[in-house]
Order: sequence, then C-alpha cells, then structure tokens
Amino acid sequence: MPMPRAAQVFPRPEYLRRLSAVKSEMERREVEVLVVTVPANITYLSGYTSKSGYVPQGLLVSLREEEPSFITRRMDAPAALHQMFVDRSKVIGYPEALIANPDRDGYDAIIDVILDKGLGRKGIGIETKLLPTLAVEKFKSRLADAKLLDCSNVVTWIRGEKSDLEIAIMREAAAISDAGMLKAKDVIRPGVREADASAEIIATLIRGANGKPGTDAASFFLCATPRTSTCHIRWTEDVFRQGSQINLEFTGVRHGYTSPLMRTLSIGRPSDQIRRLHEGEVAGLEAALAAAKTGMMCSDVAAAFNTTLKKHGFEKESRCGYAVGIDWTEPTASLREGDTTILKSNMTFHLMLGNWIGEDIGYVISETFRVTDAGGEPFTKLPRELFEI
Amino acid sequence: MPMPRAAQVFPRPEYLRRLSAVKSEMERREVEVLVVTVPANITYLSGYTSKSGYVPQGLLVSLREEEPSFITRRMDAPAALHQMFVDRSKVIGYPEALIANPDRDGYDAIIDVILDKGLGRKGIGIETKLLPTLAVEKFKSRLADAKLLDCSNVVTWIRGEKSDLEIAIMREAAAISDAGMLKAKDVIRPGVREADASAEIIATLIRGANGKPGTDAASFFLCATPRTSTCHIRWTEDVFRQGSQINLEFTGVRHGYTSPLMRTLSIGRPSDQIRRLHEGEVAGLEAALAAAKTGMMCSDVAAAFNTTLKKHGFEKESRCGYAVGIDWTEPTASLREGDTTILKSNMTFHLMLGNWIGEDIGYVISETFRVTDAGGEPFTKLPRELFEI
Repeated sequence: MPMPRAAQVFPRPEYLRRLSAVKSEMERREVEVLVVTVPANITYLSGYTSKSGYVPQGLLVSLREEEPSFITRRMDAPAALHQMFVDRSKVIGYPEALIANPDRDGYDAIIDVILDKGLGRKGIGIETKLLPTLAVEKFKSRLADAKLLDCSNVVTWIRGEKSDLEIAIMREAAAISDAGMLKAKDVIRPGVREADASAEIIATLIRGANGKPGTDAASFFLCATPRTSTCHIRWTEDVFRQGSQINLEFTGVRHGYTSPLMRTLSIGRPSDQIRRLHEGEVAGLEAALAAAKTGMMCSDVAAAFNTTLKKHGFEKESRCGYAVGIDWTEPTASLREGDTTILKSNMTFHLMLGNWIGEDIGYVISETFRVTDAGGEPFTKLPRELFEI
Repeated sequence: MPMPRAAQVFPRPEYLRRLSAVKSEMERREVEVLVVTVPANITYLSGYTSKSGYVPQGLLVSLREEEPSFITRRMDAPAALHQMFVDRSKVIGYPEALIANPDRDGYDAIIDVILDKGLGRKGIGIETKLLPTLAVEKFKSRLADAKLLDCSNVVTWIRGEKSDLEIAIMREAAAISDAGMLKAKDVIRPGVREADASAEIIATLIRGANGKPGTDAASFFLCATPRTSTCHIRWTEDVFRQGSQINLEFTGVRHGYTSPLMRTLSIGRPSDQIRRLHEGEVAGLEAALAAAKTGMMCSDVAAAFNTTLKKHGFEKESRCGYAVGIDWTEPTASLREGDTTILKSNMTFHLMLGNWIGEDIGYVISETFRVTDAGGEPFTKLPRELFEI
C-alpha cells in the first residue's frame, strides 16, 4: 500500500510562491540548480520535518522543474512521501549501502542525480554551511565542469519575511509557549526538583494549546540559583529553594515554527538589583518594539534598547535578538548596533534580552514579534512581569 | 561571587585518564595541540554539557598542559566554570562582539589562544568534521606556518571503549529508557492523541528512574499507523485507533550518556506478518548478542543477525547498529557486514533492528549493550516482546 499523504500544513500555492522567490534569486546568481541541505530550509520549501538530517540528504531546486526533488536515505523516503507537497516521483531514496561507507555516500547519490539531469556543466548553488569539509570537496571534484557557487544563506534570507499563513502558525507556537510559562508558574515551588518542574513544562509544550499540540520538543533552558548567570544549561538534579531565582527560555513548536519566550521567576521577593534590572529591561523592550517599524534597521532596534537600558543604569553586552522562525534562530539579521538590515513587514525576531553579568547575576525576558508599520507586534499574551512565587 | 563548581559526575582521575589516551594519540600523530570542536567530545574530556555549540567554541588539549583550555562565548563561560573539572583559569570567554560578526568570530579567538601559547609553528590537530567550511579556511590561513592535521574522529574512537564508571552511568540512562517504555504501554490507548502520549513518555524520561532524573531530553520518535514505515518523525496530531501499531525509539539521558531503546506496540492483535517478523528479529537479536564477544568483529555481529533473520524468511537492508554513548550515535564502528572493527571489552552499541519494508511495513526492536568476553550484555531489563495493548 503506498504511503498516504498527510494533511498539508500549507496549501500548494504557498510552497510554489516560496520556490518562485528562490528561483528568482537563483536566476540572478546564474544558478541552474540549488542543492538545499539546511534542514530548516528543506522544511520551508517542502513541508518535510522528519529528523533525518544527520545523514546526507539534499533538496534540489531546479529552474527547469516546478517541484523540487529530494534525495534521501531510503529508510527516510516514506516520511518524505507522507509529509512533502511534491509528487511521489520527486522523492528519491538512496540505498542503505551508502551509510557508514567510506567510499561512496549519500552526497554521491545527490551528485549522481545532478549529473543524470544533465546539469554537470551548469551553474550549481550549494548550501555548504553545514556540510562536512569532505562533502564539499566531493562536490568540487565530481562536478569539476560545473560553476559551483556557495549559496548558504540564500533560502535563509528569503525565509526571513513570513507570509500571513506562517505568522498564523507562529501565533499557534506562541500560545503554546505561553501555556508552558503559566505551567512553570504553577509547578515551581520550594522543594520541587528542577527536573520534575521541567518535565511538567515540557509535557505542556507537547500537549499544546487551543487543541493544537506542539509538534516537536525544541531546546529548553532552566537556569536557577546558583546558576542564574548561565544561559544554555538544561535543568539540574537540584531542588528549588525559598529565595531561588529561575530563568526560563523555551518555545512551543508548530510544524517546525517556533516562538521563543523568556521570563524570570523568583520564589519570594527578588533582590532590589534584580527588580531594578527588570524595570530597565522592560523599558528597553518597549523602546525596542516601538523602534521595530517597517523601514527601520536592525541597528535602530538595538540602539533603542541599549539607550533605554543605559538610562536605567545597566548595559547588556550581547546582541538583543535575532531573526527567528523554523527551528528557532535564522542566522541572518541580528538585532545589534551596526546591523543595517532594513526591517520589512512580517519579518520575525526573537527580542532576546537575557542579561548575564559576572558569575552570579542573570535576568531574562524576551518576546518574539513580527515587524509592522506601527512597530513590533509581540506574539505572547503574557504580562511583562518578573513572576514572584 | 564566583560561580560554584557543580558536584562532579566523574572524579578527576577519570578525566585525566581520558586526556592521557588522547595525548598518546596526539604524540603518535605529531600533534602538539588538538582543537576539539565536537560537543560530545568536549563533554567527554571535561564534563561540560551546556548547549552552546551553535556558536564557535573549542577545547584545546595541549601536550604541555595537564588540563585542557576551553574557549567559549563569554555568556557561556559561567556554565563552563560550573560544570568542567578544570581550573578556573582554563575557561576563556571571548567577547560578544564576535557573535554575528562577519569579520572576526569565535574561531579567531581560538586561533589567538593557539598563537599566544606559541604553538603557531607546531603540529595542530583539528576536529574539522562539524566545522563550517569558512572556519576551516580561517584555521588554514591564520595558521599557515603550522602543520595542520584533520583529527576529526580521534577522540570519538577513544570514547568507544567505556570505563566501568561510564557503564554505570549508561545503566542509569537505560533504567530511564525502560521507565519510558513502560509508561508508553500505560498511556497508549485508542482515542488518545499521539502528542499526549508523547508528552507523558517524555515527562517520564525527564523525571527519570531510581531517584535519578534524566538530565536532558534527547531525540524521540513515535511512528504509528499509517506511518509505521517511517522512522525519524516525532508524533503527529492524530489519535491512536484500535488496530494501530506504534513504533517507538527514544532514550533516557544521564550527563550526556544515552542508552537508546526501541519496541513495537500494537493496540489489538498484530498481523501474522508482523508477528513473524518479530520472531525473526528477536532470534536475530539473540544471535547478534551471542556473537558480540571481545575479539570478534562488528561484521561478525551483523552476519549473525542477518543469517538468523534470513532463516525466518526476512531481510533487513540497513545496518543493524552503531557505537553509542554521549549524545547517542558515535560515528565510528558500525554493526554492518564488512566493518572489521575488533570488539573490545566495554565497547557499547545500539543494536538497532528497525526493519522498514516498502511503504506500509515497519517493525522495531533494539537494545543497547556492552561487549564482554561472554557476548553482548544488554542494559535494558525489558522483555523482548511485541507489546499488545
């Protein structure tokens, strides 16, 4: 029995619109075929979210074909047939003999398809960014007659401007993030293990909100006293105590799309210093959102935040956010002074105002927002509070 | 207040033993300093499990120094001070100005430290495997006077043979995997959403077993009817039904160490074909474990499985397992015919017998085991059943 097609998250015209934007950029760069290897970009152009990217795989976007072709390990082909919007004939499984094989691997299978399509002497774009050095060498040597061009961030930049359909999905993810934070407020109590609270919060992120489950469990950070100056650890085996501060960062996920959220919680009254830092950061957050209007630059948003925070007597060394979407961070526009990216409508950012000072102070607050003519419009419905438990 | 040191998972001599094995291999290759960039290898040599590897970071192992140095983004330094066994002076945070900076990045900070240590004309080993092409180019151009050598799998191969201390931690992870599978048997029922069952199972994997919580949420796969021929999808928005088959793959995690487990569940009586496949796979699993003795080859284990399965009228195209440990797969030894790796005591493998046939058949069973003189010793305590609900 052939694998049935899953209910599609986006209608076919939405994928064709995205592909059309990619093909325009390919034409501009004189690239006949683009080898997409970044998993989030494959998701964007096809709907595929299966976690097979730890072995070679590639989505080929060709100027000559409406739909892309996907070359993947044979055992992953059924998931592609299930999830992708493309015709069955576009999913090409390569044999298992190419796995853990030092002589021929899945990149050879991708190159074979390019050669079979008669594109061996054309302009070929490759997303090399996440490729192992040996794979890049293989493309160079086996496609020696082609004009190879690194196109690592081409699709990623196009992803930056979301459609209204994508914004709707990100709002679903945001509602899940909110549910997770409210659950955190409920379960974090003195004597509770960090791990047990995390289990409850993550379960909430998977159960979802408004009848829409989370479709994945993304990264999750819980940094509690005495670790509030750390930012990328999970939970520990410790328990919360009276006086503990808890910095949380996580996201709900809908079909790959994220909407990260950070809040700081305190069991008992937070220190004066943390309360003053909170006030400065919230003022900075509001200033940043006001500055995040269509036509402004990323740099303007960062400057608005930094200036406001400084008025409150604090500084933040790290950038104050980054483009966000499928699989969390988009490595393109950065909310930092000096980034001259012009803000366009429906660009989405994680305004990430975590501020870690020295080895014992850390405070976090963040909101994911979209750019509008009137400024940044956040997706979360939570108050900008330092939650006191 | 300086960041306090966390309770250490392994005693200092264990880390020094691991480093000593790495240094011996470095001497053999005439490498004076090794730049470790694979997160699992950094964990192995230092105890660091914070998730900062999405920006440049590197652990420098030098023949001249007992402890390695860690160069990381400044905001991640407190977590390193907390988790790593090394002296405070060995943790070097680079400024936030190097993030999202096209001119100078964290790899420059790593190269600066190498040059400052006077090693710019020495043999330098680099784990290039996961590095972006541009980073490799930077090492080549800024260390043009050095003798650069790709050492991508040097530490990974050393990780293959576990100490008894590591085996104990992997057994803790296995007990958590078992608890997760028992929870799956409890919560999977007709009418239950796949997402809700996944939430319960994942929460169990985090709460842990025997008073020891899971320390991370690793990858998780639930492939249920009509998707039993897929292998790397999460859950869907669908509900289980009478007659549904559910293929599960997940692991508990303890301090980075995993012990993956797969089992097949069926709501109601499974088809004759699946029951026959189950019998063949269990017979193959037992044959493989019997063959996994010290001194045998990976190939022998695969041959024992394949021969046995064939007697039952089935074949499995994909390899039947791989080395396993920190962060799941170790990309070294592979349980496939033709892999001549000699099995040594306390090597650990995920004997992964997932068998996906065409687009509508899939059956999974797996066990993580260690190599002993008497054969493979599995960590799971679960029966080798096709669980009928």
